[in-house]
Amino acid sequence: MEIKTVGGGICAPKGFRAAAVHCGIRNNAEKKDLTMIVSDRICDAAAVYTKNKVKGAPIEVTRDNLTDGKAMAVICNSGNANTCAPGGKELARQTCSIAAKCLKCRHEDIIVASTGVIGEKISLKPFEKGVPEICENLNRKNSPDAAEGIMTTDTVPKEMAVKFMASGKECFMGGIAKGSGMIHPDMATMLCFITSDADISSKMLSAALKEDVKNSFNQISVDGDTSTNDMVAVMANGMAGNKRICCGSRDYEAFAEALHKVTEELAKKMAADGEGAGKLIEVLVKGAPDKETARRISRSVVASNLFKAACFGQDANWGRIICAIGYAPGDFRTDKVDISIISNAGEIKVCRSSAACGFDEEKAAKILSEKEIKVRVDINQGMAEAKAWGCDLTHDYVTINGDKRT
Amino acid sequence: MEIKTVGGGICAPKGFRAAAVHCGIRNNAEKKDLTMIVSDRICDAAAVYTKNKVKGAPIEVTRDNLTDGKAMAVICNSGNANTCAPGGKELARQTCSIAAKCLKCRHEDIIVASTGVIGEKISLKPFEKGVPEICENLNRKNSPDAAEGIMTTDTVPKEMAVKFMASGKECFMGGIAKGSGMIHPDMATMLCFITSDADISSKMLSAALKEDVKNSFNQISVDGDTSTNDMVAVMANGMAGNKRICCGSRDYEAFAEALHKVTEELAKKMAADGEGAGKLIEVLVKGAPDKETARRISRSVVASNLFKAACFGQDANWGRIICAIGYAPGDFRTDKVDISIISNAGEIKVCRSSAACGFDEEKAAKILSEKEIKVRVDINQGMAEAKAWGCDLTHDYVTINGDKRT
Repeated sequence: MEIKTVGGGICAPKGFRAAAVHCGIRNNAEKKDLTMIVSDRICDAAAVYTKNKVKGAPIEVTRDNLTDGKAMAVICNSGNANTCAPGGKELARQTCSIAAKCLKCRHEDIIVASTGVIGEKISLKPFEKGVPEICENLNRKNSPDAAEGIMTTDTVPKEMAVKFMASGKECFMGGIAKGSGMIHPDMATMLCFITSDADISSKMLSAALKEDVKNSFNQISVDGDTSTNDMVAVMANGMAGNKRICCGSRDYEAFAEALHKVTEELAKKMAADGEGAGKLIEVLVKGAPDKETARRISRSVVASNLFKAACFGQDANWGRIICAIGYAPGDFRTDKVDISIISNAGEIKVCRSSAACGFDEEKAAKILSEKEIKVRVDINQGMAEAKAWGCDLTHDYVTINGDKRT
Repeated sequence: MEIKTVGGGICAPKGFRAAAVHCGIRNNAEKKDLTMIVSDRICDAAAVYTKNKVKGAPIEVTRDNLTDGKAMAVICNSGNANTCAPGGKELARQTCSIAAKCLKCRHEDIIVASTGVIGEKISLKPFEKGVPEICENLNRKNSPDAAEGIMTTDTVPKEMAVKFMASGKECFMGGIAKGSGMIHPDMATMLCFITSDADISSKMLSAALKEDVKNSFNQISVDGDTSTNDMVAVMANGMAGNKRICCGSRDYEAFAEALHKVTEELAKKMAADGEGAGKLIEVLVKGAPDKETARRISRSVVASNLFKAACFGQDANWGRIICAIGYAPGDFRTDKVDISIISNAGEIKVCRSSAACGFDEEKAAKILSEKEIKVRVDINQGMAEAKAWGCDLTHDYVTINGDKRT
């Protein structure tokens, strides 16, 4: 199946409009802090959420609102997570009501999300001011603004869109995402909103999303901290006119493949823009006994502080890689591991059959000096493989996170 | 029961001698790289080891040697971990043979350990030169040298000794430890050697050690990386003349309490000397439903990169603390959590019932400016409590671990 990358981000699918404004949640008037994404028609919708036991109030409200599998719009603020804050759930509900009033829909059809500092009370006033302003500015060119409005310590907005075919109809899918720190997702991750004009039931949408995050957002790590506000939500409005996807089928496969193209790209963008990151690191694990073990091993390596610091220092210290492989949970052998390091500057094998194999340290340092590094690990025990993404651990990470909140 | 701190370290118990030399495993001739601890009499002995699936060769040899629960001496080198290195197991066995020959004991009575770089071949020559030299210099004043000989990136040697009573006899216990990076123990940890002149069976010794590490070494974290070479070994030679401890009894309790006093102190010294550390952080969790949950929560907080960076920045960002509580594994409630921050500069409550409670940010920053910080968490759901120890995440950590191996 052919999936093509296209422009337009979150507004690439038919019938989706977006906008973002600065409404006053943040002090910095230059920074947009409120985003809305709105469909012309009611959508089938699904979401996955953080597994952190401490959950942001918007997570609870969105979960309630999505019990019927229907949604019309997303509203998301940055600058305050509305988590462990007094009256947070009531505030999230009122936000939905304000948006619903402007859009003339039910408040239960709003997906609400927040990201920012935990534990600070949030006021309704900025929403009362910002939502009507956004609703007047909704259009199909505003995906970059929408991506900007949800950013926290992110340095670049993150968008992606693709085109695919279902029952002979051209369908589109678009997504925006944010995420830079507190990134070690478990189940869902950070914030990501995905739109599509395909016609697909919320049940199949939910199945596709749950399977997909295992291989996309749940495979990235910036700092090992699983946030309280992670959410990936997807809305499909059916305006492409394809035959409704209600069960496993070739069309479902096409939809799932398109979804993975969007989510993997956004996941990589998040990893590359991790707090203080200088490099994107991809760890490909092959030859594992099963898929879940392959995922765990790749994520264990990509999350290792010591390995991340070695990448920063351009040091091919493969002992730290095999150490992180060894403490990955699961039942697998570690006596036949091969490790190679790859980038645009070349490829070098640094470990063969779990033992040192002489290599040119200078060449290895040159390979590690690139912006994108791949580590290929072969467990030599089976056929399963998986990828995970992360970034190096740098002085800037410490500086950013040593900084005061205020 | 009264446990008194005394001097003498690893040689405080009767019948133990030690020494360390530079034998040439490291290039720097100023740095001692080989340590031996020897008992005048055969000891009952026990050890716990890393749960990393990738294990150093000395771990395998020591486990074989300790199957009979007897040991005479410890030999430990720094500068090379003898892990994933060709011929490593044979080298570790030969090391035991060289030591046994000098000490006129069986090679199976030697506990062998290594720490340093993973994946580099180690030569027997330095051992052939160093062991006879050490054996000529064994004496009861050398515990500081022994502690120095096992250091890697540690900045200070770590020793501790106590005196306790068993069946009316004065008994002693001493320990040395190393550990600065790759510290996130699972089961055992880093390297720690403990001696005692108490008379206790290897079975009871093993029981006491296994229980103890749950509350000492397994509760510290520097960087989340579980090493391949962790080991805690304890030897007791019975020279105190107490009635042999063969089952649970008041004497066993006294022994276990003395053990914990030694291990907790050494664990805290390791955490305080974590790579790049500027502060020792203790997290006390109270009111948890059970002990294991209390341990997990305290360790989750102390291992959070974001919380550690906030400590470095002296920022009372309690949102990061409750976030780390929330992703700790286990079944517990997170809606009634209280959090206080304590140091010599005072005490301040920063979160009440899982919500923001106004506090003086300046006072909080002053409390966090101290060298030793305590975080007190009350889950308010039960009676169990546990402590964990760690350190802040600093620029120096990145500098140390971004440095090339060579």
